[in-house]
Amino acid sequence: MFTVFSDTPTGHWEVIHAAPYRGDPLSPPARIGVSQAAFLPSDPALWHLTGVPSYVRYVERAEKSALVSRQAGLGRPEATRAALIPIKKSAAWWDLTQDERRDVFETKSHHIADSLKHLPAIARQLYHCRDLGQPFDFLTWFEYAPEHSGAFEELVAHLRQTAEWAYIEREFDIRLARA
Amino acid sequence: MFTVFSDTPTGHWEVIHAAPYRGDPLSPPARIGVSQAAFLPSDPALWHLTGVPSYVRYVERAEKSALVSRQAGLGRPEATRAALIPIKKSAAWWDLTQDERRDVFETKSHHIADSLKHLPAIARQLYHCRDLGQPFDFLTWFEYAPEHSGAFEELVAHLRQTAEWAYIEREFDIRLARA
Repeated sequence: MFTVFSDTPTGHWEVIHAAPYRGDPLSPPARIGVSQAAFLPSDPALWHLTGVPSYVRYVERAEKSALVSRQAGLGRPEATRAALIPIKKSAAWWDLTQDERRDVFETKSHHIADSLKHLPAIARQLYHCRDLGQPFDFLTWFEYAPEHSGAFEELVAHLRQTAEWAYIEREFDIRLARA
Repeated sequence: MFTVFSDTPTGHWEVIHAAPYRGDPLSPPARIGVSQAAFLPSDPALWHLTGVPSYVRYVERAEKSALVSRQAGLGRPEATRAALIPIKKSAAWWDLTQDERRDVFETKSHHIADSLKHLPAIARQLYHCRDLGQPFDFLTWFEYAPEHSGAFEELVAHLRQTAEWAYIEREFDIRLARA
């Protein structure tokens, strides 16, 4: 089942800020709706970003247990702010082997450990789209209450200075408020 | 770009044997064509299996180097036999973490080490399809000369008795000859 973020005038999320961070920009719509679909959108005129919530690729058992015990689900009533940040990694990243990617991702960049510090305030969901022929590799999605906006900015700023981010060749930052 | 194995009366591969190994059977056509497509097939009447040749998920650097130095490419003129074996792994497999899957895949099952022994005689390509909403998780594809059929049968029989295969819940075995 695909998750589709699309141009939906009646969508639940209003775009309040949109800016390129690296690479080619996007032109997101004013409102974004999130839906589940059994097929990839086929209307070329529809603005959409589509991904799938796949299995975990890097976490080890102790990390998974820590994440599961601390993380919050999507859709909390108080989480009226969201961020949709699609990213594309470079060919150099995808040429790495599994152990090398894990080394950059966690040993050098502490991606999991640093994300854990912001749970449960920041709810997260990663959607994979590299294998779907989409323009990005991942759609990263976060939901939080307005009072945790500062913590979220800290997390984003921190991740962007890690070794992992040297492999990010395209990133666009969309911030949303529940409409 | 998707790789599509489909019912193609003029396809380059003739099905010479087809049998379920585990789980629900398939009804493959008499001839199979292999094509590249930018979109997932949308004709519900078309028999097809579709996947993407994605990045490596388990191999480490030394293993990747060994594979690359020894493996043969697809399409060798002498490789007139092929096998298309779609497989689906269980929920228990996908609930494992990366380190646990690697432990089953290589430490316990020697999937990479045992496959290496059959290079370059058996050319291999793995296509991923779990994230495409397809009925299988992987399409495994092998090409070999008729005189290496025995070696291929050994490899298949060996893999099916490994710890990894306890996680296979559906598998269908299609053998082909170049038409």
